[in-house]
Amino acid sequence: MNKNSSNIMTLAPNTSNKKETVCIFGTGDFGRALGHKMIQSGYSVVFGSRSTQTSSLIPKEAEVLSHAEAAQKAAIIIVAIQRQHYDFLTPLAEILRGKVLVDVSNNLKINQYPESNAEYLAQLVPGAKVVKAFNTVSAWALQSGTLDASRQVFVCGDDMEAKHMVMDIVRALGLTPLDQGSLLAAQEIENYPLQLFPLWKFPIFLSLGLTAFFFFYSLIRDVIYPYVYENKDFSFFIAISIPNRICPIVALILLALVYLPGVLAAIIQLYRGTKYSRFPDWLDKWMLCRKQLGLVALAFAFLHVFYTLVIPIRYYVRWRIGSRILSQALNNKTDPFSNTNGWLSDSYLALGILGFFLFVLLGITSLPSVSNSVNWREFRFVQSKLGYLTLILCTAHTLVYGGNRFLSPSSYRWYLPNAYMLSLIVPCIVLVVKFVLIFPCLDKPLTQIRQGWERNPQYSE
Amino acid sequence: MNKNSSNIMTLAPNTSNKKETVCIFGTGDFGRALGHKMIQSGYSVVFGSRSTQTSSLIPKEAEVLSHAEAAQKAAIIIVAIQRQHYDFLTPLAEILRGKVLVDVSNNLKINQYPESNAEYLAQLVPGAKVVKAFNTVSAWALQSGTLDASRQVFVCGDDMEAKHMVMDIVRALGLTPLDQGSLLAAQEIENYPLQLFPLWKFPIFLSLGLTAFFFFYSLIRDVIYPYVYENKDFSFFIAISIPNRICPIVALILLALVYLPGVLAAIIQLYRGTKYSRFPDWLDKWMLCRKQLGLVALAFAFLHVFYTLVIPIRYYVRWRIGSRILSQALNNKTDPFSNTNGWLSDSYLALGILGFFLFVLLGITSLPSVSNSVNWREFRFVQSKLGYLTLILCTAHTLVYGGNRFLSPSSYRWYLPNAYMLSLIVPCIVLVVKFVLIFPCLDKPLTQIRQGWERNPQYSE
Amino acid sequence: MNKNSSNIMTLAPNTSNKKETVCIFGTGDFGRALGHKMIQSGYSVVFGSRSTQTSSLIPKEAEVLSHAEAAQKAAIIIVAIQRQHYDFLTPLAEILRGKVLVDVSNNLKINQYPESNAEYLAQLVPGAKVVKAFNTVSAWALQSGTLDASRQVFVCGDDMEAKHMVMDIVRALGLTPLDQGSLLAAQEIENYPLQLFPLWKFPIFLSLGLTAFFFFYSLIRDVIYPYVYENKDFSFFIAISIPNRICPIVALILLALVYLPGVLAAIIQLYRGTKYSRFPDWLDKWMLCRKQLGLVALAFAFLHVFYTLVIPIRYYVRWRIGSRILSQALNNKTDPFSNTNGWLSDSYLALGILGFFLFVLLGITSLPSVSNSVNWREFRFVQSKLGYLTLILCTAHTLVYGGNRFLSPSSYRWYLPNAYMLSLIVPCIVLVVKFVLIFPCLDKPLTQIRQGWERNPQYSE
Repeated sequence: MNKNSSNIMTLAPNTSNKKETVCIFGTGDFGRALGHKMIQSGYSVVFGSRSTQTSSLIPKEAEVLSHAEAAQKAAIIIVAIQRQHYDFLTPLAEILRGKVLVDVSNNLKINQYPESNAEYLAQLVPGAKVVKAFNTVSAWALQSGTLDASRQVFVCGDDMEAKHMVMDIVRALGLTPLDQGSLLAAQEIENYPLQLFPLWKFPIFLSLGLTAFFFFYSLIRDVIYPYVYENKDFSFFIAISIPNRICPIVALILLALVYLPGVLAAIIQLYRGTKYSRFPDWLDKWMLCRKQLGLVALAFAFLHVFYTLVIPIRYYVRWRIGSRILSQALNNKTDPFSNTNGWLSDSYLALGILGFFLFVLLGITSLPSVSNSVNWREFRFVQSKLGYLTLILCTAHTLVYGGNRFLSPSSYRWYLPNAYMLSLIVPCIVLVVKFVLIFPCLDKPLTQIRQGWERNPQYSE
Repeated sequence: MNKNSSNIMTLAPNTSNKKETVCIFGTGDFGRALGHKMIQSGYSVVFGSRSTQTSSLIPKEAEVLSHAEAAQKAAIIIVAIQRQHYDFLTPLAEILRGKVLVDVSNNLKINQYPESNAEYLAQLVPGAKVVKAFNTVSAWALQSGTLDASRQVFVCGDDMEAKHMVMDIVRALGLTPLDQGSLLAAQEIENYPLQLFPLWKFPIFLSLGLTAFFFFYSLIRDVIYPYVYENKDFSFFIAISIPNRICPIVALILLALVYLPGVLAAIIQLYRGTKYSRFPDWLDKWMLCRKQLGLVALAFAFLHVFYTLVIPIRYYVRWRIGSRILSQALNNKTDPFSNTNGWLSDSYLALGILGFFLFVLLGITSLPSVSNSVNWREFRFVQSKLGYLTLILCTAHTLVYGGNRFLSPSSYRWYLPNAYMLSLIVPCIVLVVKFVLIFPCLDKPLTQIRQGWERNPQYSE
Repeated sequence: MNKNSSNIMTLAPNTSNKKETVCIFGTGDFGRALGHKMIQSGYSVVFGSRSTQTSSLIPKEAEVLSHAEAAQKAAIIIVAIQRQHYDFLTPLAEILRGKVLVDVSNNLKINQYPESNAEYLAQLVPGAKVVKAFNTVSAWALQSGTLDASRQVFVCGDDMEAKHMVMDIVRALGLTPLDQGSLLAAQEIENYPLQLFPLWKFPIFLSLGLTAFFFFYSLIRDVIYPYVYENKDFSFFIAISIPNRICPIVALILLALVYLPGVLAAIIQLYRGTKYSRFPDWLDKWMLCRKQLGLVALAFAFLHVFYTLVIPIRYYVRWRIGSRILSQALNNKTDPFSNTNGWLSDSYLALGILGFFLFVLLGITSLPSVSNSVNWREFRFVQSKLGYLTLILCTAHTLVYGGNRFLSPSSYRWYLPNAYMLSLIVPCIVLVVKFVLIFPCLDKPLTQIRQGWERNPQYSE
């Protein structure tokens, strides 16, 4: 490894076959971890620090110099210092001219400062080429070598060459650089590690809201009503019976809400006669989180399946079945077999199983590695064709579940219909509208609008 | 961003640190979407169009010029025009000399034209460097920014430098370029987005065929036979009982068919005494879709598991159990506990659970991201050792299911044996042959044949 | 394709736009497979062999020459020969000067030789630039084109330019090069394909040990004890009842062992007052295999779920329930419904379902492609917050399972407590210590120690 590369001041491409000396400003946790990793990958590392006495924590192979001395040794300087201390760089401006300054900082809050740390750094040291990188990697991950979480390093910067030099380092450390464009992207990159599932927020809050509503709805119908009118204590329904009423309802509504924006978009496009005007903002946002909506729906469906499968193990169910058989035995009469009930019970279960199967299939294809290995046409086939089939099966499952009781007046308690009936509203609307949209008189113009680019408008403008 | 780069006619490497001006021919849907995305990524974009009046749909930051003028501004020209209009490029041949022409077109059918669009373009403009790219990306995905499906962009071309320039653009747009070699690969790349699960076709049609066969087989034995001889209406068996008979049978047969080609290949290799002569074509194709066969088998096994688990919730099953207990109560006699039945029932279920568990494990390891993180030896261990263990467990599960009734004459109806007995034929053949192949007298020469490269044949030729 | 590139001796960057002629030493299995693939990707291939007569197995497009002649034709020479034959290269040293020698060899055992094959090659031919690559790819995978397993090719070497040339070839073959640094990494790269799930060994052996212990423990309590004292034959419990006792116990203990090292590390850090001294080796190793421990625990939980769900289908359970109802019918008395039992049974099942649901969620997020798409904060949230919630739910599930019987003297047989009570020890310890660590008086100093880098120690050294 070339140790005399300190005099390589120009970023000449012919030096690219030698691993440069890299300077790190700051001997804090992240600076040291990065230094360690770089030395392991064959770089020479020199630390720039206020105090030049080597600490036992600093890798032995690295030199510790003053900021000015260290900066002169390398073409790339990693600024592993917090933003509020950046002003110490101002006096070094002359030395830093033409150097690549890598901003690795993170903030504590989203949009903490008006401009990103990297842009602020670029303003402070206008002669340097500022590149934003490494902020998504944790010191702990670098130290332990266990990069369980993402290996992706977002890189942005205005100078292409500087950016490529940093991306080469990223690759050499065994990480994956992702070019995010110019320094304007720095704000977004700095916000990224502070995000906590941004696209999941709406689906999760929506599902919690629905859960709460249907919990109290079912509580009134299934626990409070029998307690008031029949003085029966069904409070233990809270553990399984009521959750198993809520889960399928929320799952079905969420699944329908995955397909509702597509239907709305089709109506808007048909009405406007063009696909080139933007959708309303709420529709855009809704469409962006459809995958997350679908996966939350799948989670509720999963819970519904297991709540249902444990039914025969429940003490209450065993006791009820046993006491029904006993009362028949004591009264010396037997229930005849009802073929209708056989059909209803079996087809209800079969529809549910098939719906759940397709739902799981949809979930698997939305795994990043699976969706990456299918082409656009295959992805659309699965997500659209199979998706609608899932919705149809699950809606039919709920309809058949009602069976004979569906809309019968005896199922109303305090004028409240069965909860599952409420869950059918959105899916039925989606399916009916989708069915109408399939008619040729609507489907044909819609297809033409959507394939606008196939009518060669570039020649007709 | 350098706006004066229009005079960079040579593809000099020293300009690589400035994002070039890119020209897009065609202001259609895809051209505009690509232009938008490129401007966002910091490129200057100039559109070449027949009519130079700017439409409101074209990004404001882009210029619209005549084709000739636009081409002169950039080293890279993206031809976002349909193949049938390519001939307008012929008069521009002189201007396009030495330029990189990017063919982004797709066809409507697989192998629609004798030569690929990109090769046709290269013939039309022989002086240009044609690169095929971007055809796997949809305008919609570029526009919405939601690249749920693949981010992979296949790139091919005869000129390495031109190809690398295009791959740099692909990377800058946040996509992943995959170098597919020379322009000969264009045909394949153009066919790719038109494919619909090509490797899945055989497994899915095979499983549908098997499903249909066993459906009618079971229908005759389980619904029509009792209706004819006992006048009992078991038509509701169609919902669960018959599917739950078909699913395990199809799953077991498909699982055995995953391992059959390996066994056949071993026999062929032993017979021929070499591994270097090609297998018959049908065997090659069969081996290529083994993963898909296995996953379809897993889907059927999954359905079988859930069809089985809902058994105790079925009205028919509850009624049958209740009426059996009732008849015992009324006749005042109790069934004694049969230890044999206890063993058979429990070991049948235990084998099924373990088989399903290993089957799910195999399915998980065939996820692209999981199989990418294991080495060749680990992959072989899981797919071969665990695979055969799964097959053994599932075959044993089916054998024990038969239990006492296995091959008993009373289980024949209209001379038709139980369907599950038919499902045992293929797995048993595979397991027996595999068992024979494990014997040292066969295993040793086979291993030697397969490790041909370890006997250093390069010195003996 | 430039066939006259044999005189390109210098590795000049301006030749990078032409696919070089590549020389392959050795016409064995791997050499031929690689040659085939390279020709497909547009390279000219020339084989160097002792005997220059072309075999039918060698691709027709390739030339076969003597080693010396072949070496002169290309700048890159792939040495597809076994290590023990490397000494034939010594006489060729002069011809090989300045060439890139690619070592593709593998060994049969981990650390078979004191130095790696690549380093040995570099010693033999000191004038050449040795690069290690391709050893993780199998000839079979190259030949068949079905790269089901990893497409990753680890590359290492001391000469950056040589390494980049090899990485370009790797990319051109459709594989993914991973730069592993200098030739020192060769030993590790050569060991990699010989590994068989190294991080899985400890979790799997631990779980097998626990399984064996609890199997005999349960055998004594549940089969031998009733046989000795009541002369009842419950041997069929071995199939389902005992496994379903072992699985949840092992799953719970392993899950607790996932979180125990984190708790121990916190105690060590609090005691030492710093995070910068290394943990004991066993703790480091334990922490590295936490993901694997968790996934093995999930496998046992999966088995427990399915063993539990088949309970109502078991002959033994049906017989027992039936005979209990019959005895009630014959004695003309009915069990009253116990609300406490209803609550215990339902909340036990509900806790189990929710725990399993979160456990599956943890498993899904540990898939490589999923964990790659979340940021560090999200990964920590899922693995830590959801992880502890899972542990709490599963521990509560086990506690409620005990219910009334918990610690009752009648559940002791031969002074042995119920097995599930043993399984509660580790999880309860982990949860109690974690709970103590959450108190502000301990949490605050711990957070400060862990965020050492945020206290700007670089200015205080």
